[in-house]
Amino acid sequence: MNFATARFAPVRELFDSMLDADPSYSAQLAVYVDGVKTVDLIAGPDCAADSMTGIFSASKGVAALAFSLLVQDGLIDVDATVATYWPEFAQHGKGSLTVRQLLSHQSGLVGVQGGFAMEDYNDPAAVAQRLANMVPLWRPGSGTFGYHALTMGVFLEELCRRVSGVRLQDLYNDRIRVPYNADVYLGLPASEEPRFRAVRYVQEEAGFLDPHSVAGVSANVQAGNLLELPNIRSVRAAGSCSGAGVGSAHGLARVYAGAISEVDGLPAYLSPATIAIMGQEQVWGLDRVFCDTGAFALTFMKPHPRMDFGSAEAFGHDGANGSLGFADPLYGIGFGYIPAWNEDSGTAGRGMQLSAAVRRAILAG
Amino acid sequence: MNFATARFAPVRELFDSMLDADPSYSAQLAVYVDGVKTVDLIAGPDCAADSMTGIFSASKGVAALAFSLLVQDGLIDVDATVATYWPEFAQHGKGSLTVRQLLSHQSGLVGVQGGFAMEDYNDPAAVAQRLANMVPLWRPGSGTFGYHALTMGVFLEELCRRVSGVRLQDLYNDRIRVPYNADVYLGLPASEEPRFRAVRYVQEEAGFLDPHSVAGVSANVQAGNLLELPNIRSVRAAGSCSGAGVGSAHGLARVYAGAISEVDGLPAYLSPATIAIMGQEQVWGLDRVFCDTGAFALTFMKPHPRMDFGSAEAFGHDGANGSLGFADPLYGIGFGYIPAWNEDSGTAGRGMQLSAAVRRAILAG
Amino acid sequence: MNFATARFAPVRELFDSMLDADPSYSAQLAVYVDGVKTVDLIAGPDCAADSMTGIFSASKGVAALAFSLLVQDGLIDVDATVATYWPEFAQHGKGSLTVRQLLSHQSGLVGVQGGFAMEDYNDPAAVAQRLANMVPLWRPGSGTFGYHALTMGVFLEELCRRVSGVRLQDLYNDRIRVPYNADVYLGLPASEEPRFRAVRYVQEEAGFLDPHSVAGVSANVQAGNLLELPNIRSVRAAGSCSGAGVGSAHGLARVYAGAISEVDGLPAYLSPATIAIMGQEQVWGLDRVFCDTGAFALTFMKPHPRMDFGSAEAFGHDGANGSLGFADPLYGIGFGYIPAWNEDSGTAGRGMQLSAAVRRAILAG
Repeated sequence: MNFATARFAPVRELFDSMLDADPSYSAQLAVYVDGVKTVDLIAGPDCAADSMTGIFSASKGVAALAFSLLVQDGLIDVDATVATYWPEFAQHGKGSLTVRQLLSHQSGLVGVQGGFAMEDYNDPAAVAQRLANMVPLWRPGSGTFGYHALTMGVFLEELCRRVSGVRLQDLYNDRIRVPYNADVYLGLPASEEPRFRAVRYVQEEAGFLDPHSVAGVSANVQAGNLLELPNIRSVRAAGSCSGAGVGSAHGLARVYAGAISEVDGLPAYLSPATIAIMGQEQVWGLDRVFCDTGAFALTFMKPHPRMDFGSAEAFGHDGANGSLGFADPLYGIGFGYIPAWNEDSGTAGRGMQLSAAVRRAILAG
Repeated sequence: MNFATARFAPVRELFDSMLDADPSYSAQLAVYVDGVKTVDLIAGPDCAADSMTGIFSASKGVAALAFSLLVQDGLIDVDATVATYWPEFAQHGKGSLTVRQLLSHQSGLVGVQGGFAMEDYNDPAAVAQRLANMVPLWRPGSGTFGYHALTMGVFLEELCRRVSGVRLQDLYNDRIRVPYNADVYLGLPASEEPRFRAVRYVQEEAGFLDPHSVAGVSANVQAGNLLELPNIRSVRAAGSCSGAGVGSAHGLARVYAGAISEVDGLPAYLSPATIAIMGQEQVWGLDRVFCDTGAFALTFMKPHPRMDFGSAEAFGHDGANGSLGFADPLYGIGFGYIPAWNEDSGTAGRGMQLSAAVRRAILAG
Repeated sequence: MNFATARFAPVRELFDSMLDADPSYSAQLAVYVDGVKTVDLIAGPDCAADSMTGIFSASKGVAALAFSLLVQDGLIDVDATVATYWPEFAQHGKGSLTVRQLLSHQSGLVGVQGGFAMEDYNDPAAVAQRLANMVPLWRPGSGTFGYHALTMGVFLEELCRRVSGVRLQDLYNDRIRVPYNADVYLGLPASEEPRFRAVRYVQEEAGFLDPHSVAGVSANVQAGNLLELPNIRSVRAAGSCSGAGVGSAHGLARVYAGAISEVDGLPAYLSPATIAIMGQEQVWGLDRVFCDTGAFALTFMKPHPRMDFGSAEAFGHDGANGSLGFADPLYGIGFGYIPAWNEDSGTAGRGMQLSAAVRRAILAG
């Protein structure tokens, strides 16, 4: 079942060496190049070729691909104010905030003071209302940005509903998942439950994180362990665009491949012009939440030293468990990596190493 | 005399453990919660319950509380240009700089080239005139900010005098210190001198700091050792708002408590709307002077990893000796900490540890 | 031949100690103070008093001095859009970018996707055309800046040609190099070839740097080893303003001295007003390319912790081999340092140590 074209033998060797070094290691890796599957590998005891697991914030990348269709269709102008589409949002000095600023993590609405419950992940409209009522945690438009870990999906969903009348998850299903046969779900149907494997993790001991600090609000620590989220059936059934997606690496690679390339006779669903808008780096520097370097396009992460996943044209998203999905138009890459056990998602991590190996293989010709 | 309610026993234990670990340690700690004193502790040989010492830049926080009254009274619009109130300021490209930018450390006027003498701390109008004549050390409005250690008080004082005709110190006395019986002085009267204890410090050997570099100008290194400032009678008598305040921890906690809560039957002297303006984070990132992370509201410091003193709503200021005063409206906290010997004011420091203990005690219920 | 006035004996001692510590060390150092040569030293086997070698990006500083004349003459308004002078530049959202933003490394045009050949360094007009056609690697005007290592000279040259009709190298020759007898060349004539000594370096083993990443594009890694550039006769003959200058430390010091001081009866060629425009810090923070702190005026580097070469008024540029040239108007310094072997150019490096020694000597009186 494991497959890699000859050109990508070094990628397969690297992936195999990870399993050799740690027999409990389990993961899926898939790569498309110019719309053609060139790598499709699994390793370890805790996943199978057709198994799926939680992809956490890599869901944001998938959702942003669907949201890009709203921009492409002219339903959203990223330089319009958010309040153009969502009048209630204009409260407390947010009237001049643009969609561009909101989607590049500049709004200062990184969470809700007091937190929200696990079940609220399934009620984005209620969370959206609380966010519209909120005073931003920093002055928006000041150039500050910080990762909106649990609210970015809420914004994508609310804007989609307001301009199209449909749920972003449904838009994703109708325009991307079903036609492109992409094995990533924003809302896992009951029929696919047998393929789901729970996210595995070792619980770390953490120091005091004030739940009312910027970092604490952003992580909604009052609601409990975020790593447990996709393991709750109701949460993965609702498929919050912030982080409740479920998929296989094959599906993640394919959904990105279809964005930039013809795949199995289907044309790329995004135009270069749309990619130029959605994939351009908007902010770079010290992320207010991470307090470390970060770089964002519109929702999508851009490569930077701490997350060095691609060329200057690449755009994608990682997840809390170390999952990684991205497209790199310059190389023609659609990439998906999903580990079974929680692992580091940064530059030294396995996903980044595998991405580098893929690009080296392409450069080697 | 030492006092802590049962709920804050862990705070008292932490404070006591600091003395246990270092018998020469001397400090005061006081905390109000919802306007009620819940912690009032002293430790060590070098302070007493009624002693006072220099609080250095924690003075800026006290002065900014008084300045907030000018905003509340409508005498200052923070989005107006500085030159609206101070026409001479408009020179050398500073005409479009707003009060908001000036008070969030964006003006590039972090000091005066050539420095100023110790006595000039007592003549803010003369220093203000030199600052108005100056070319900013960076292009103001470019998003750069850097701690205006010795000039922020000058700006607060000059603006106050120009819009109200009174000294900011007098405004503070009349509207805050006297009515709220707050034991912190911007200008220590002779009658209180017996309670003053000199700031103690160990002189550190420093490498070459160019007195004409941004950091050197900012620290006015030509004038000598800043840690000596409050120990000069004329300086603490004049009470420069940049750093010549004198007080007790009890007074520092009380002045912040009165800003956000009813205290002993007196209503909070700042409205939530004023706090929303003055306490909102304006800038975050790499401070041009510290060359490390920083975050500022209007004059006030905001919590960030290097100074992790409170929730996202907290605002306050530390001082060079490790003193710390802040309000945290979310928790209802007014906090004051003043060590007798110079110590680190950053996140690993005692003030931050004590702040975290206070918040944990409140969260524990 | 080695020369230092008594006041600068400590500088000479430091320079000598570097040779004592490493007998293979070879370098030139020259300093002017208030237009008078006060230090002129050489050390080691690989340079001579009249030898010259490559100065890499210190060329940008020399070119920017010449470009400043265009601003001084009113041919360039730094707040005009680039497209005012170069209409083709307006493509792909670059129409509103100002000269100020372009020259402070904010344009996102840090290189050309796909790279350019070594010979293209000699054809700046062709590279300029490609840059005009390009989508910026980040949204320009967002506050992001990153060192435009190999394109800044192209921009300076293109703008000069468009507003004056002459090559920037010719402007430099006519207005600065020849009249001031400054021994630094942007385009080394055949007659001076006998004085040229090849840049020496130890080739370091590097990890994978994606040639299509921001850092890879910026370094044009596809063209090969940049340290070899000045060693190619055609490249140093063309004298790219980005990095193909050749000179002596004496010349580098003199060209900066003449910018700010009368030298040998010739008046300073830049006015204080021009220096105020060109030398003011425009950007500070995390450089998008270096992913470390940086600070730039218009083309010139400004001192910051990683490159702590002078006072707040200093402006200059280092080079990849550790060369350093700057003016510090506050101290009256014109400074040139050029090592024969590639060395670190940062704060711990020799150039920075020597700069600090010069300033300490002046401060000591």
